[in-house]
Amino acid sequence: MKVKSKKIKLQTKGKDQVVNVTDEVKQAVADAGVKEGIVTVFIYGSTASVTTIEYEPGLVKDIRNLDEKLVPSNASYSHDQTWGDGNGYAHLRASLIGPSLTVPIAEGVMTLGTWQQIVVIDHDNRSRSREVIIQIVGE
Amino acid sequence: MKVKSKKIKLQTKGKDQVVNVTDEVKQAVADAGVKEGIVTVFIYGSTASVTTIEYEPGLVKDIRNLDEKLVPSNASYSHDQTWGDGNGYAHLRASLIGPSLTVPIAEGVMTLGTWQQIVVIDHDNRSRSREVIIQIVGE
Amino acid sequence: MKVKSKKIKLQTKGKDQVVNVTDEVKQAVADAGVKEGIVTVFIYGSTASVTTIEYEPGLVKDIRNLDEKLVPSNASYSHDQTWGDGNGYAHLRASLIGPSLTVPIAEGVMTLGTWQQIVVIDHDNRSRSREVIIQIVGE
Repeated sequence: MKVKSKKIKLQTKGKDQVVNVTDEVKQAVADAGVKEGIVTVFIYGSTASVTTIEYEPGLVKDIRNLDEKLVPSNASYSHDQTWGDGNGYAHLRASLIGPSLTVPIAEGVMTLGTWQQIVVIDHDNRSRSREVIIQIVGE
Repeated sequence: MKVKSKKIKLQTKGKDQVVNVTDEVKQAVADAGVKEGIVTVFIYGSTASVTTIEYEPGLVKDIRNLDEKLVPSNASYSHDQTWGDGNGYAHLRASLIGPSLTVPIAEGVMTLGTWQQIVVIDHDNRSRSREVIIQIVGE
Repeated sequence: MKVKSKKIKLQTKGKDQVVNVTDEVKQAVADAGVKEGIVTVFIYGSTASVTTIEYEPGLVKDIRNLDEKLVPSNASYSHDQTWGDGNGYAHLRASLIGPSLTVPIAEGVMTLGTWQQIVVIDHDNRSRSREVIIQIVGE
């Protein structure tokens, strides 16, 4: 049993940019040499989230529209009165979807469906430098 | 420390069918002989999700109604224009709830509440054969 | 490799009280002496959830308002017709956000952002005694 850790850096534009990190996580799993175990993908920071989606342009638009409908960017949030940075909606979207995803590793590969990609969504209202932590536990 | 893996197959009708998989996961934990650790329950595919709920008929109806309210099945989605399979809403519901759940194992059993069951929700718009991966790490 | 487990008890007022448990989880990680690994934070019960948020009074108000908008407490739920306990909305909010969070541990500390705190949200409609299970796997 071992633990392997990898950090990847992303430059995002914010505004619900959806970044497909599946290849980077696959590579980290391959490099770790773990045959059976789990991998946790975690986004550092409170205005971005991690989930899976079929990564294709239509759904990327759809999830942005859904976020805008459920947590509108032009509504009034108490957070913005506290800090004045205007990204209260981004925090809420991030908390709703969540910052963490754990995927099984079986026979050396993640048990993802063919149309199931791991994505980071940057909900913030500006460009950000992001760090994704990939933590692999297994044997 | 060891890793134990089990796959279970489900036949679902889609349309937000809620499947209680608690007994199957409990059995996998018992079979693994792990006293202290964690179990990850992961659904393969991008139109289903995993969470916990009190599994009773009222809440099953309520969560379907909630999904329909938050992500209506009769709205227009860009995904459907791409593929024409009409299940854009199912992808979005799945990404919102998420495909993965990790539960602690203590003294040989999962630390679930009495009224807290592990469920797979199949959001797709048709019958599906599903695979759930149960990955146990512990000692 | 080892597994370390800790339970913490919370007294909450329910009604979407947001409880910052970051310090307790940090302490558990430090006590475990794990340098590289993962920590799972899990809430026992089906009317509370775990996520990360920037813990400041504005966002605490905002997330309560968001929950009230997405899953209103004064709407009619089938669960309440089953049990008559009037907390159907609390179950739904809990299932949507989810009961579990897994965070990497690197160089002995959790990889949380500066403004990213681990919180338990008690969605129930009354005071509750809660148990949070912190499960650490690593070396």
